[in-house]
Amino acid sequence: MVNGIVLPIKKVFSLVDSKITVEIKDDQRKLQGRLVAVDEYLNIHMEDTTEYVNNVRGRTLGTVVIRGNNILSIQPQV
Amino acid sequence: MVNGIVLPIKKVFSLVDSKITVEIKDDQRKLQGRLVAVDEYLNIHMEDTTEYVNNVRGRTLGTVVIRGNNILSIQPQV
Amino acid sequence: MVNGIVLPIKKVFSLVDSKITVEIKDDQRKLQGRLVAVDEYLNIHMEDTTEYVNNVRGRTLGTVVIRGNNILSIQPQV
Amino acid sequence: MVNGIVLPIKKVFSLVDSKITVEIKDDQRKLQGRLVAVDEYLNIHMEDTTEYVNNVRGRTLGTVVIRGNNILSIQPQV
Amino acid sequence: MVNGIVLPIKKVFSLVDSKITVEIKDDQRKLQGRLVAVDEYLNIHMEDTTEYVNNVRGRTLGTVVIRGNNILSIQPQV
Amino acid sequence: MVNGIVLPIKKVFSLVDSKITVEIKDDQRKLQGRLVAVDEYLNIHMEDTTEYVNNVRGRTLGTVVIRGNNILSIQPQV
Repeated sequence: MVNGIVLPIKKVFSLVDSKITVEIKDDQRKLQGRLVAVDEYLNIHMEDTTEYVNNVRGRTLGTVVIRGNNILSIQPQV
Repeated sequence: MVNGIVLPIKKVFSLVDSKITVEIKDDQRKLQGRLVAVDEYLNIHMEDTTEYVNNVRGRTLGTVVIRGNNILSIQPQV
Repeated sequence: MVNGIVLPIKKVFSLVDSKITVEIKDDQRKLQGRLVAVDEYLNIHMEDTTEYVNNVRGRTLGTVVIRGNNILSIQPQV
Repeated sequence: MVNGIVLPIKKVFSLVDSKITVEIKDDQRKLQGRLVAVDEYLNIHMEDTTEYVNNVRGRTLGTVVIRGNNILSIQPQV
Repeated sequence: MVNGIVLPIKKVFSLVDSKITVEIKDDQRKLQGRLVAVDEYLNIHMEDTTEYVNNVRGRTLGTVVIRGNNILSIQPQV
Repeated sequence: MVNGIVLPIKKVFSLVDSKITVEIKDDQRKLQGRLVAVDEYLNIHMEDTTEYVNNVRGRTLGTVVIRGNNILSIQPQV
């Protein structure tokens, strides 16, 4: 059970320094970029971030810190 | 009361390694896949995930970590 | 004040094993079923659950775990 | 500062056993009833509850437990 | 860093007994009134509260306790 | 892992006294101003704040405290 408690975040920790896709809650937006840091609340620090609106490439955002509660999902970029 | 406190999450822990359906809050979307890990916040790590929009099969998502507060419900897949 | 702190959840604990109606936030939906377990976050494990959309009987859901923050209210079923 | 920390909830504790109006977040609804219990999360147990939709009297709800995060405001009923 | 952690709330503590404007999340509403008490969650107890809808003066609310998570911002009234 | 836990907030702490752009959740609004203080919940105290609605300059807000859960993202102003 101790393993069960830490695992979803462990998966995200394993993605540090790689490219991820972050889906924002209640929004047609995704952010893609390099995961620099993540904490236990799933707050995320990304670099080289690009915005996708309805899967169309949008603005280049660069450095961004996203608050965890507004993140719907995190995926490794494929 | 101690039992009462741990039980809803215990039900989800019992679903690890089996197929689940996750309903997203304020969204016409459900995600189906294999539950790999879950923590006390109901953050979820799923593999082999498929998206359903208004019950129509959508994208294949593969690996995804979903933040617990944006999950409305979790059910064993029937 | 100690009593004041524990009481709203105590009311819900008293409903374990009986039929409840759960109103979902920002949704025209209610879920009715038997309360199996509840924790301090008002996460809920229900069995024999039926969905009502705008008070019209909808799908039979069976087993469902609902995350507490997305629950607006819990009532004993009358 | 210690006083500052406890006071907003102290105001609500002082309303136990009296009539209150609870405004729901993102909803045209208010609930009026007798406050039976409240905890530190502003979870609320009300009895003799009546619903008002756009200030028009709606259903009689009786016993209801409301989750604190979905409450916008609490007022003494005037 | 210890200072950094306490400061945003310290700013709000400094506004106790003065007039503030509270902006509600996802709402065209602001509440103006005297700040009586605030806690670490930014729960707020206001007196002599007046509602503004789209910047037009609305109802007089008097005493109100607002739950912190539904507050977007707090400003000193100018 | 200890580093991983503290880092996203550390990035924001590093922006104290500089100009930032704060994106509000579910809103076409951004706030630009000088970051005075931030805490572990990403509650933010800004000064010299200006509002942008759909990227058009709006009101001058001056001093504002924003509750962290309603912040989608924080970026250094470029």
